Amino acid sequence: MSDLTIPRDRNDDYSAAAVAARQALVRERTGASIEHVASYSLDPGSLPGNVEGFIGAAQVPIGLAGPLLVNGEHAQGEFLVPMATTEGTLVASYSRGMKLTRLAGGITTTVVEDKMQRAPVFTLPSAREARHLAGWLDEHFAEIAAAAQETTSSGRLIEIQRFFASKMLYTRFNYTTGDAAGQNMTGKATFAACAWIKRNYPGELHFLLEGQFATDKKTSVVNMLHTRGKRVVAEATIPSALMEEQMHVSNDKLFSARLKGQLGAFMSQTNNNGNHSANGITALFIATGQDVANVAESSALYGFSELLPNGDLYVSVTLPALIIATYGGGTGLATQRECLEMLGCYGSGGVYKLAEIIAATVLAGELSLGGAVVAEEWVSAHDSLGRNRP
Amino acid sequence: MSDLTIPRDRNDDYSAAAVAARQALVRERTGASIEHVASYSLDPGSLPGNVEGFIGAAQVPIGLAGPLLVNGEHAQGEFLVPMATTEGTLVASYSRGMKLTRLAGGITTTVVEDKMQRAPVFTLPSAREARHLAGWLDEHFAEIAAAAQETTSSGRLIEIQRFFASKMLYTRFNYTTGDAAGQNMTGKATFAACAWIKRNYPGELHFLLEGQFATDKKTSVVNMLHTRGKRVVAEATIPSALMEEQMHVSNDKLFSARLKGQLGAFMSQTNNNGNHSANGITALFIATGQDVANVAESSALYGFSELLPNGDLYVSVTLPALIIATYGGGTGLATQRECLEMLGCYGSGGVYKLAEIIAATVLAGELSLGGAVVAEEWVSAHDSLGRNRP
Amino acid sequence: MSDLTIPRDRNDDYSAAAVAARQALVRERTGASIEHVASYSLDPGSLPGNVEGFIGAAQVPIGLAGPLLVNGEHAQGEFLVPMATTEGTLVASYSRGMKLTRLAGGITTTVVEDKMQRAPVFTLPSAREARHLAGWLDEHFAEIAAAAQETTSSGRLIEIQRFFASKMLYTRFNYTTGDAAGQNMTGKATFAACAWIKRNYPGELHFLLEGQFATDKKTSVVNMLHTRGKRVVAEATIPSALMEEQMHVSNDKLFSARLKGQLGAFMSQTNNNGNHSANGITALFIATGQDVANVAESSALYGFSELLPNGDLYVSVTLPALIIATYGGGTGLATQRECLEMLGCYGSGGVYKLAEIIAATVLAGELSLGGAVVAEEWVSAHDSLGRNRP
Amino acid sequence: MSDLTIPRDRNDDYSAAAVAARQALVRERTGASIEHVASYSLDPGSLPGNVEGFIGAAQVPIGLAGPLLVNGEHAQGEFLVPMATTEGTLVASYSRGMKLTRLAGGITTTVVEDKMQRAPVFTLPSAREARHLAGWLDEHFAEIAAAAQETTSSGRLIEIQRFFASKMLYTRFNYTTGDAAGQNMTGKATFAACAWIKRNYPGELHFLLEGQFATDKKTSVVNMLHTRGKRVVAEATIPSALMEEQMHVSNDKLFSARLKGQLGAFMSQTNNNGNHSANGITALFIATGQDVANVAESSALYGFSELLPNGDLYVSVTLPALIIATYGGGTGLATQRECLEMLGCYGSGGVYKLAEIIAATVLAGELSLGGAVVAEEWVSAHDSLGRNRP
Repeated sequence: MSDLTIPRDRNDDYSAAAVAARQALVRERTGASIEHVASYSLDPGSLPGNVEGFIGAAQVPIGLAGPLLVNGEHAQGEFLVPMATTEGTLVASYSRGMKLTRLAGGITTTVVEDKMQRAPVFTLPSAREARHLAGWLDEHFAEIAAAAQETTSSGRLIEIQRFFASKMLYTRFNYTTGDAAGQNMTGKATFAACAWIKRNYPGELHFLLEGQFATDKKTSVVNMLHTRGKRVVAEATIPSALMEEQMHVSNDKLFSARLKGQLGAFMSQTNNNGNHSANGITALFIATGQDVANVAESSALYGFSELLPNGDLYVSVTLPALIIATYGGGTGLATQRECLEMLGCYGSGGVYKLAEIIAATVLAGELSLGGAVVAEEWVSAHDSLGRNRP
Repeated sequence: MSDLTIPRDRNDDYSAAAVAARQALVRERTGASIEHVASYSLDPGSLPGNVEGFIGAAQVPIGLAGPLLVNGEHAQGEFLVPMATTEGTLVASYSRGMKLTRLAGGITTTVVEDKMQRAPVFTLPSAREARHLAGWLDEHFAEIAAAAQETTSSGRLIEIQRFFASKMLYTRFNYTTGDAAGQNMTGKATFAACAWIKRNYPGELHFLLEGQFATDKKTSVVNMLHTRGKRVVAEATIPSALMEEQMHVSNDKLFSARLKGQLGAFMSQTNNNGNHSANGITALFIATGQDVANVAESSALYGFSELLPNGDLYVSVTLPALIIATYGGGTGLATQRECLEMLGCYGSGGVYKLAEIIAATVLAGELSLGGAVVAEEWVSAHDSLGRNRP
Repeated sequence: MSDLTIPRDRNDDYSAAAVAARQALVRERTGASIEHVASYSLDPGSLPGNVEGFIGAAQVPIGLAGPLLVNGEHAQGEFLVPMATTEGTLVASYSRGMKLTRLAGGITTTVVEDKMQRAPVFTLPSAREARHLAGWLDEHFAEIAAAAQETTSSGRLIEIQRFFASKMLYTRFNYTTGDAAGQNMTGKATFAACAWIKRNYPGELHFLLEGQFATDKKTSVVNMLHTRGKRVVAEATIPSALMEEQMHVSNDKLFSARLKGQLGAFMSQTNNNGNHSANGITALFIATGQDVANVAESSALYGFSELLPNGDLYVSVTLPALIIATYGGGTGLATQRECLEMLGCYGSGGVYKLAEIIAATVLAGELSLGGAVVAEEWVSAHDSLGRNRP
Repeated sequence: MSDLTIPRDRNDDYSAAAVAARQALVRERTGASIEHVASYSLDPGSLPGNVEGFIGAAQVPIGLAGPLLVNGEHAQGEFLVPMATTEGTLVASYSRGMKLTRLAGGITTTVVEDKMQRAPVFTLPSAREARHLAGWLDEHFAEIAAAAQETTSSGRLIEIQRFFASKMLYTRFNYTTGDAAGQNMTGKATFAACAWIKRNYPGELHFLLEGQFATDKKTSVVNMLHTRGKRVVAEATIPSALMEEQMHVSNDKLFSARLKGQLGAFMSQTNNNGNHSANGITALFIATGQDVANVAESSALYGFSELLPNGDLYVSVTLPALIIATYGGGTGLATQRECLEMLGCYGSGGVYKLAEIIAATVLAGELSLGGAVVAEEWVSAHDSLGRNRP
């Protein structure tokens, strides 16, 4: 082990000197020029709270997709969608789906549920005492909620779900969180609530702030069933002639292929019976300053389609765990804020609108890739557009 | 529906004029200045094959974590790790875990498996004929592999797994793909293989290139069991005194907490019985030009720990579906290439080294967050470092 | 297609003549003597409501296991446990575990939750209207519960869980059901509730009585998380010297093996991270007249063990979906009732006692098989006792 | 703890005296008369190897369902199906489905795969050595198979699947097992194989005979993907007029309901996207002397249906883990053997025929219950036939 350490300035670690010292170390130790990394227009002074050990910025190219026609409760009209990606064909493919759905009259979107959680597990001396604790939590819900409330102005505890196993009581503390994603807010509030419980519960009790029942940054059945973040549905109906014309495939054939895919998804036990929601979500998350690691859970998807008696295809996607924010986190940084502004979503009041735009984008992408696979155009599209991808 | 369309230049859609035309449209229609989006040092001429409808770049701040001490077969020694993120505390937390493991002698890493797949589903007139096809595929494996081989120089078909259901034969065509991630390569090769099969199989047969058994961009049990991309293990042993000193928690207490987390993960049915692998993986993926949407599947994790008779803690993570590349895709772009160069992984021959560095980073992060939660320092750390996160 | 039909007597299909006619057909068409099938002591007159087309009875041998020492809230003291099985070593193995736990002071049991459900899915014109229905159900819960209540005296609707996807609202109508298992009771009550909803909801709505969210006769994560039937925990603490003496294995070694098994269970995605709960549950279900098909769901298990600082092993099992009854169904038939009487569980008031006995039996069996596998005695035990099993 | 013990005769524990001594104990300690339990026609002398502590027999009523028309490779023609159950309406419901499918021309059945396994986990000093072991197993497969072979005449090792995690190598040793179910045979053979490996592997290695990757008596994704026992498909095509006439529901309506059920099954994460396979399988397992605990895994089901262009409904079920035998175990006991004889399946050579009959029975039951739920006749059928079920 060498004496290598990364320079850090305790007074101002985001100063030009501090940044330069780290860049110099990188150049010296690794030989990398990091010329582009060191070329950024963002103000390092905006970064405390977003990154430590700052040395520069990754430049992720943004393509413009759309227009996307959304008939939401919050997002209404046509949107130009900024997608940050390095994957060839992605923007083109989403644009194709946006065109199809726009010609079909647009995509209807609905946020059907909204909650964020932290999931402490309580360990008791025995199962019988775990059962007793559950009853006690019910009786003291108001006081527990009040303890949580003291740590936050925008979050509110709405429910404590419980799951018994052995001598433990696994819980999910569910909150509403306003326009913030709320993972930290709920962490802090739940910690306060647990401390109150530990102080006041008339018995021995140990808690751990996370018992793997909120599965932050991890997809899970429990989150898909019970919502983490926003649960959003996007729906559209595609006339069969339009599908043929735009996608060169019939609704019948698409639906028949889908049936096989549904069984495949059930067998392979994926968290997503769709095609590639992660593509659109990731591109929008990077562009708009979301916590991109949440793609792990936010890309979960329930797809559902029906062939209507008149031959039209009803298609829908449900995103059960879309974790997004329009203020806080990375949303206020230079390019990220601009992309939110492009969508009219920056700041307070924008989060449902953003949820609707993302869900609509995902649905457009599902139709585009689904159509391409069935029409057997998918390989050739990648060939011509994605030439950098071996 | 308006007459809005996104300008496109069929001759050179990456020219300054083409880009400016789209930027102008964005400004006019949305009012967003996109001043920072339009400030980039990358050469738009490098982007064909990576993005369509280019309008600028997202700037994602990069923090430097480390040094990370890796005892791999390919990655050996100390690394300075570039992490692109907007989540406060992330870099600091990973650095803390890197310090702990470095003081413990480093992290041992091993790539135990490597394959990429495309998963066509074949539909036959009946189950009996599906069974017949399976036998026929065995008999003609060499010819099928040859047909696949014609489309690629670096990929090689090594196995066709099969899963019967109804009158369908779901398959996984498994390939080795060299230093590329290989999703497109295997798509093209499998399409060629399927076309050969359709031409030569003496019977009625329909195929669909993807039957949801490769679950590209989607996590699944089948991929976790059978590997997609690289399957990498990172292991370390932490002396109990060192854990106390660095993390303010005992190995015993950490292990006991872990047992409850393991049951929680089993109950909540997550794809990851660890803490937050997605954080480290995403930050490295953005920095090094990986296909970030693959976080959905690459963040899957099997954790395993043991309390040794002497009180030391053996800890390990297994990433069963780490999809990465060191050439092709976004790896050659401006900042992305520089970050790969920082790790000594750019280009041919670097992919196993990168896999080892990522796995080691993940293990460091698991220890850091795990320790913080048990030591109940996690909430306060976020409070002081992550102030931008509500 | 021949003109073969099974004889049926519309006046009394359980009369000696009706039974004999079917037996004659079997003998004539198949050549089977069915001499033993036709030898039964039960009264066919007791069978309407339990079986149609009666021709005789299967004789399933019953072995006596125990004594089983239970420290429950309802089951207290020593029990002789009737196990109906044809699997050699099963009774001996459970008896061994019962001896071990009896020597350790017995097994503590707790019923922590109790509910039965039917899970209608409502289809609406769109997701937005599905969300509206959810609110409407909340507002009209009392009336819905009253409609359900009209069909049953012992069941009571306690909660309607909801899960949004697409334009559907999947629900779980949760009931308490007294000493009955309650699948039919809840079916009927939910049908009445749905009919009331359809009549009164001010909008278009279609319902299907089961949307695969109660998963009757099928194991599921949703049932394991949220309980179907009784959720029972059995706990014991085994001193390390006792384990050595009785099982020829150390607590340490058992615990270490268990860790690997836990990871295996997580990877293989089983509904049961224990050893063989289905063995004990099935044997008790056949003996006591339970609906044996419920083994599919009732055998789900969460196991949890801890090595205590003093070297003792805390072990527990949680059965999250134990579906049982002590009246109705097969519980009143000849041998079935006798076996319930052996356990002091027949009739009203016995169901929690039976739940506790079953959970304690399962825990005894887990310890026995677990010990045998680790002590590598398992193969030889089967060799000497299970000689009829190839 | 009392001095209560269950009497056991070391010379002949199945003698009349030994049995009577236990019966006397039961009567004395519990007050239960066990008159019917003590009434059996089976010969206790046939029971060694099937049960210990014998005190009598459960009488489970058998109903006759059918005729069932099967177009299998092994089962051909019409069968009278003995179903042992205490659940009212079950036999009638299956008979209804058998009538429907018979009128539709019968059910086509195919055994598509057949293997049984034991799944040892090997623990090595590190992941790198686990990877080395995997290679070594490949090189020594013939010797390992030979070591396994020495313990069995009918089993044959065909493949060792491997799954890496941490420093462990989880495996599945797959065997063919002839007409036996083979769980014990494969246990013994794998133990011999592991002993050989331990003796010969040039390095430190520890094994545990079961790593939860064969999940005996437990359903799991790995078993559903890779087959445990027989993988059988049953298929039928139902003309729409016939469906209307027999089930009072249209193919369209049935298919539309099914789509919602499929999504429900995906969301609730059940091992079975059908209706109630466990009912038919359990009734046949009890009747024919199968190991009924295997219902836990054998009832797993993949259903797949398609609405054909002409309005007919193609329906199929795939049972991926049907564990059955036609000799050994309980198959030779008094009533059990008679029921196998009724189906022409007793003894050597019968196991595929039995697999086909079971799969066809399951499909008939799926159609019957599915139709009843959609036609909203299900509740009333239970009301009139299942009156003993509260």
